[in-house]
Amino acid sequence: MIRPAPAIEAIPATTPFIGPEQLMRDSGLSELVRLGANESAFGPSPKAVEAMAAALPHLWWYGDPESYELREALAAKHDCAIEQIVVGSGIDDLMGLAVRAFVPPGGRAVTTAGSYPTFNYHVTGYGGALSFAPYREDGTVDLDALVEIARRERPQVLYLANPDNPSGSFAARARMQAFYEALPHDTLLFLDEAYGDFVDAGDVLPPHLEDRLVRTRTFSKAYGMAGARIGYAIASERNVRTFQKIRLHYGVNRNAQVGALASLADPAFHASVVRETAAAREAYYALGAELGLPTLPSLTNFVLFDCGSVARANLVMAELLKRGVWIRKPAVAPLDRYVRVSAGTAPMRAAFSQALRDVLAQVPV
Amino acid sequence: MIRPAPAIEAIPATTPFIGPEQLMRDSGLSELVRLGANESAFGPSPKAVEAMAAALPHLWWYGDPESYELREALAAKHDCAIEQIVVGSGIDDLMGLAVRAFVPPGGRAVTTAGSYPTFNYHVTGYGGALSFAPYREDGTVDLDALVEIARRERPQVLYLANPDNPSGSFAARARMQAFYEALPHDTLLFLDEAYGDFVDAGDVLPPHLEDRLVRTRTFSKAYGMAGARIGYAIASERNVRTFQKIRLHYGVNRNAQVGALASLADPAFHASVVRETAAAREAYYALGAELGLPTLPSLTNFVLFDCGSVARANLVMAELLKRGVWIRKPAVAPLDRYVRVSAGTAPMRAAFSQALRDVLAQVPV
Repeated sequence: MIRPAPAIEAIPATTPFIGPEQLMRDSGLSELVRLGANESAFGPSPKAVEAMAAALPHLWWYGDPESYELREALAAKHDCAIEQIVVGSGIDDLMGLAVRAFVPPGGRAVTTAGSYPTFNYHVTGYGGALSFAPYREDGTVDLDALVEIARRERPQVLYLANPDNPSGSFAARARMQAFYEALPHDTLLFLDEAYGDFVDAGDVLPPHLEDRLVRTRTFSKAYGMAGARIGYAIASERNVRTFQKIRLHYGVNRNAQVGALASLADPAFHASVVRETAAAREAYYALGAELGLPTLPSLTNFVLFDCGSVARANLVMAELLKRGVWIRKPAVAPLDRYVRVSAGTAPMRAAFSQALRDVLAQVPV
Repeated sequence: MIRPAPAIEAIPATTPFIGPEQLMRDSGLSELVRLGANESAFGPSPKAVEAMAAALPHLWWYGDPESYELREALAAKHDCAIEQIVVGSGIDDLMGLAVRAFVPPGGRAVTTAGSYPTFNYHVTGYGGALSFAPYREDGTVDLDALVEIARRERPQVLYLANPDNPSGSFAARARMQAFYEALPHDTLLFLDEAYGDFVDAGDVLPPHLEDRLVRTRTFSKAYGMAGARIGYAIASERNVRTFQKIRLHYGVNRNAQVGALASLADPAFHASVVRETAAAREAYYALGAELGLPTLPSLTNFVLFDCGSVARANLVMAELLKRGVWIRKPAVAPLDRYVRVSAGTAPMRAAFSQALRDVLAQVPV
């Protein structure tokens, strides 16, 4: 007698990601070298840990629903007004709000085939239709194709991650500026800058506050707080007011707010993570060259290794898991012959390198 | 050129609650006795604090999107299957999922006028219409009126908090069983048991796993973790599968999962909070009797004090705030002449009592 609304019943049952905990339960492994989710192995700022530990006894307080102090600090960082910042429980949350607000049932959205699937999850969940631009043969995002599809289909929202996941590619300021200008002016660009901390501030778009641009940032990557679930959007005041109508006002963990604020006050740690991450990428490039697995240049905290074929990439991923090393791989061509390995600490990289050599000795690629 | 979808544009701009942090910013107060949000002044379990502190350095890991270990423990606690539990970032989150899943645009929902407003926020946000049963004159929820409206209007969802907020009233097992049976069988009962920890397990409904009943529990009240944003629904496997299609899979803070699991393993602390909360209620009843402010019997962690009129209740609330004591009050008759005061520790109660006496001396009620 009780049925979900037809639009909800029509949503296919999917699981956006299988977590490493599920893999451990399935495989019986009690420990994993976690290099699969682009988490920051360099951890959160010790100052953030200290601030959060001190705040734990006050966890009986609800967090500030306005995230006021944090938004103040973010507005100062991004040289915008506090009314142009909205905080959510990760970019996934903000992405859901943007899709819900701007893509009506039967509406359209455009993205890159094989890019971040949670955007697609939200579009499907809210009854929108998706169109995809494939990656270019060199593995980079095809901005021209995105513009062409957008001009043809006039989607309400276009999703772009820049730097991109899973390709690692990045379009610098002038290229992005031209891309943004070329988009139809009735399409909102959802610009996911989750990995934006790994590029120079001067290389990303300058602050734009037009209604057709929503940018998102996160504390999950360079700030090492993926488990805290806290991210934010920089958007026009009008768009922020729209999010304000539908967001979960008490959705953000209080300790995440405390940790995020303390993280912003520790730029030295942030800079060290960016340096360590770049060093990890260099180590991966060298490893790939040594082992005959070509890598793609990345401006993120992960590197793609070319295994030569989809089957081999799947095999390498499965064999690494048996050896306690968890990585992931892109699912869509032309990136599906690669495996994606997150930046690890030196000991994690050593474990990965050892396991990879072991796999390749048994499974020549 | 960029506009939200018409259904979103039509949503009125509202703020579900003004947080105490905003009140402090507005008033310039640097500290508040927090008795306004039914937070648990007895704090989280020290074992939970210890577990969360130990887990902070791992905050760079995403949490388990399945909350598997926690769901295992919850299934054991509630004598149901793990497939009948879904974890969200607080009941507010789960309420949003239920409304989104079951109330289509133009659909209907029924609730008690003046009860928890976040349910109404979600119904309005998803384009549903609300009908209300007023509280009875004695301040209790009018279950008969809810049934009558439900039979007439056949809403997709009926919301009931039991024990109820803000009245504090409670319908025990036999009464609830009769109420549930009397509802139309095509109406889903969203039974919010946020305050269910404060009544004996034998007094709430036994586990029901029909599609027309979704029950929710939280770690925000008796477990003292409101800032962690973690709650759960107990529902049929079919309803859980529906939530699975639309929930934010990575929406729950990892440390909240850790703390919730550790809390469940500390039943002695939980029992002590329930006892302390009951003692706080008794102290409030006695204070109300002494000061000529009749109280309503409550089975929650708050008590309503009758100020005689709406104007006086507003005045008492405003004057208490000036004295650094933060409480709230119901907004809808007949409860709007009351103020609502959360259970505090003995020092918090002393501060409240002192401030209240001071207010009454100047503003006779």
